[in-house]
Amino acid sequence: MTKLMIRNVNIVTMNKDKEIIEDGFVIIERDSITYIGSSNETNEHNVSNDYNIIDGKGGILMPGMINTHTHASMIAFRSLADDVQDRLTKYIFPLENIMVDEKLVYSGARYAICEMLLGGVTTFCNSYYFEDEVAKAAKEMSIRAVLGETVVNFVAPDAKEPYEGLKYAERFIEKWKGDDLITPAIAPHAPYTNDSNKLIEAYSLARKHDVPIIMHVAEMDYEQKKYAEEYNMTPVQYLDSLGILDENFIGAHLINVSDEDLDILENKGVGISHNVGSNSKGAKGVAPVVKMFKRGMKLGLGTDGPMSGNTLDIITQMSLVGKIHKLYNMDRTIFPAIEIVEMATIGGARALNIDNVTGSIEVGKKADMVIIETESVNMCPIYDYYSALVYSANPSNVELVIVNGEVLVKDKKLIKNDLMEIKNELLQMKDKILEVSKRL
Amino acid sequence: MTKLMIRNVNIVTMNKDKEIIEDGFVIIERDSITYIGSSNETNEHNVSNDYNIIDGKGGILMPGMINTHTHASMIAFRSLADDVQDRLTKYIFPLENIMVDEKLVYSGARYAICEMLLGGVTTFCNSYYFEDEVAKAAKEMSIRAVLGETVVNFVAPDAKEPYEGLKYAERFIEKWKGDDLITPAIAPHAPYTNDSNKLIEAYSLARKHDVPIIMHVAEMDYEQKKYAEEYNMTPVQYLDSLGILDENFIGAHLINVSDEDLDILENKGVGISHNVGSNSKGAKGVAPVVKMFKRGMKLGLGTDGPMSGNTLDIITQMSLVGKIHKLYNMDRTIFPAIEIVEMATIGGARALNIDNVTGSIEVGKKADMVIIETESVNMCPIYDYYSALVYSANPSNVELVIVNGEVLVKDKKLIKNDLMEIKNELLQMKDKILEVSKRL
Repeated sequence: MTKLMIRNVNIVTMNKDKEIIEDGFVIIERDSITYIGSSNETNEHNVSNDYNIIDGKGGILMPGMINTHTHASMIAFRSLADDVQDRLTKYIFPLENIMVDEKLVYSGARYAICEMLLGGVTTFCNSYYFEDEVAKAAKEMSIRAVLGETVVNFVAPDAKEPYEGLKYAERFIEKWKGDDLITPAIAPHAPYTNDSNKLIEAYSLARKHDVPIIMHVAEMDYEQKKYAEEYNMTPVQYLDSLGILDENFIGAHLINVSDEDLDILENKGVGISHNVGSNSKGAKGVAPVVKMFKRGMKLGLGTDGPMSGNTLDIITQMSLVGKIHKLYNMDRTIFPAIEIVEMATIGGARALNIDNVTGSIEVGKKADMVIIETESVNMCPIYDYYSALVYSANPSNVELVIVNGEVLVKDKKLIKNDLMEIKNELLQMKDKILEVSKRL
Repeated sequence: MTKLMIRNVNIVTMNKDKEIIEDGFVIIERDSITYIGSSNETNEHNVSNDYNIIDGKGGILMPGMINTHTHASMIAFRSLADDVQDRLTKYIFPLENIMVDEKLVYSGARYAICEMLLGGVTTFCNSYYFEDEVAKAAKEMSIRAVLGETVVNFVAPDAKEPYEGLKYAERFIEKWKGDDLITPAIAPHAPYTNDSNKLIEAYSLARKHDVPIIMHVAEMDYEQKKYAEEYNMTPVQYLDSLGILDENFIGAHLINVSDEDLDILENKGVGISHNVGSNSKGAKGVAPVVKMFKRGMKLGLGTDGPMSGNTLDIITQMSLVGKIHKLYNMDRTIFPAIEIVEMATIGGARALNIDNVTGSIEVGKKADMVIIETESVNMCPIYDYYSALVYSANPSNVELVIVNGEVLVKDKKLIKNDLMEIKNELLQMKDKILEVSKRL
């Protein structure tokens, strides 16, 4: 049986008209959505015996959420050094140089993918070292992903010389290009960890293979200072002067950006990953997301790595978006919940240039979708589905997850992957990580 | 069998030395904690057959969390009008005047108590109309509570004349005074909804019966403006000029407070409820909680009512405290996780003047405690218990809840109260609420 019907659900489609279909049903054939209807329709779909049927028990069926920026394997380090100043250079880079190898990247990615799936994430965008290990994990576990190999100007876990990531990236891209779930990419870490000629080289490589570039941009105060002092430019102006910003560029954070920077980003069609939890916990500032959204820019949500954001689901980020931007703008009417759900789904797909494939529940799109159950105590009463998703839900309300037509989470449990085995693999590294961390 | 042993837990005691006992056990006799030990002790506690034993499966045993400010029954209205400007006067008061009756208050409180217990809250501080209904619900369901009857200068759901709440409050206090779980109180809504002579009358009543006063203070921009224009004072200075601030005063929000206000609040020993989620979602501002904490003031966390904060657990608030105050102060070292867990537990108990009874796991205190399981995907790895509680946990990780020695939640389920029955009772009012809300 290749046809799947999900019925008895309230469908938050996130299509162009933001339609909600109460008491609806969806039909999935192979990897795609082929029909969306409502229960009061009387047609062959409701009487056919051809389907494998899932009863949604009155839950909310929404598009799979998209985590537009993370470093999944860093889950191995979660809960270390949350409150340390200058953490990236003083703590994280040294820790990574000692601890990160292929095994950690693979095991960490596997565990992180479990957490993302269980939290309703059906696509993630990742950048890290040994990115081929992340791709293997994602492919084996059947989650959709945009994966970029990191390039930096120093010796890194997978680079005995600076910029070796460029070579790794080309091999990686050639290996995965054309895969139905994995989009390979190249990820120069940040402007300040790459020389300009190497950024241009990375860009050429991306264009040669027609893949995305992923980069942290305008995230750090010292980054802002460096480009002001050395070039009298913002980081965005600097990257634009190199000619490397275009619609295949995915910029993470973009906190310190001026209105002129927004003009550039908008004109070039840059995709934006807003990391509200990481930006706030790291005391990095508030990105002008209200302006980005009003301009209709390609804007999604990301968790950042689990040392920065701690959890990998997007539901938790949604609530934070509302709270932090309402507060920062001293206006409770900003970002009504519907706009936040947009960022978490179709907005993220647009940022990653995969909105033709995923991000909404529409006929013709791949079947990436999630049921949020409404039986738990926190999900009642519901007068507004968007409000319930943004301000009441938590990742434990994710009941069912389908990626590319395949059911991966059912009754809140992974059904294809063995969480206990993957967890035990991750925990094998814990003692050594703890010991190393004490020396930092 | 009256003795209960909880073993195989990592105990976050929140005692004065903030001791953590790994692989520990706790003994509870009747309503109190009588012994705390570690598994490598060899004594009669580990071999006795006298105990009802609970295996904590390596989870975190922490003090029950304290929700220092809510209006529980407003859960009936959750997810209505999240993004509406001037909501209190234009939407909430009119809605309440049509909809709130004894039944709604009772049913709403019952449902809200389910959510609090399932989220690890063992004590809540509430103010609303028909507060006797909340007390009945809390007592029946065996949760600890500080409950204040609302007093306002207008006709309210339980007051045909302004200030009738004063009379209700006295009857209510007389009825519940001396109860082992319920502390009755009086709750003048706010400075701006009460005349000064009535505030003094409420204070006299509280002193006569030796009960707390609960009040919203320095929450609203228009409140600040009113007291500046009419008295050339801040709201805190105004209340102090009436002589009603003392160690039995519990102030909620306290956002717009100067350093001089903090001097007053500290000198008078006022308890403070910080409502970070509600304050941010309502775009009300950032309370100077960093200063309050540094001064060692009596400081706890609250959710506010579920129309403002949407959920009633304190775990969600903890993560927000870290993120919002680190961001606001542009300093990631502010509020290390241990300080946030302090506010959620013993700090809240101090704010409510019940820290001799609850708020920490110590011999002699009442047995109010919670197990946070560490088997779910989001709770691994753990290098730091406080970080895991603040930045990784969500209410679905609450495994076991004990209030006053009685097990109320086990295996994540209510064992004394019937959630489905209570939910159905709440949902009976949904259609009418929706209809009324559309007219507002």
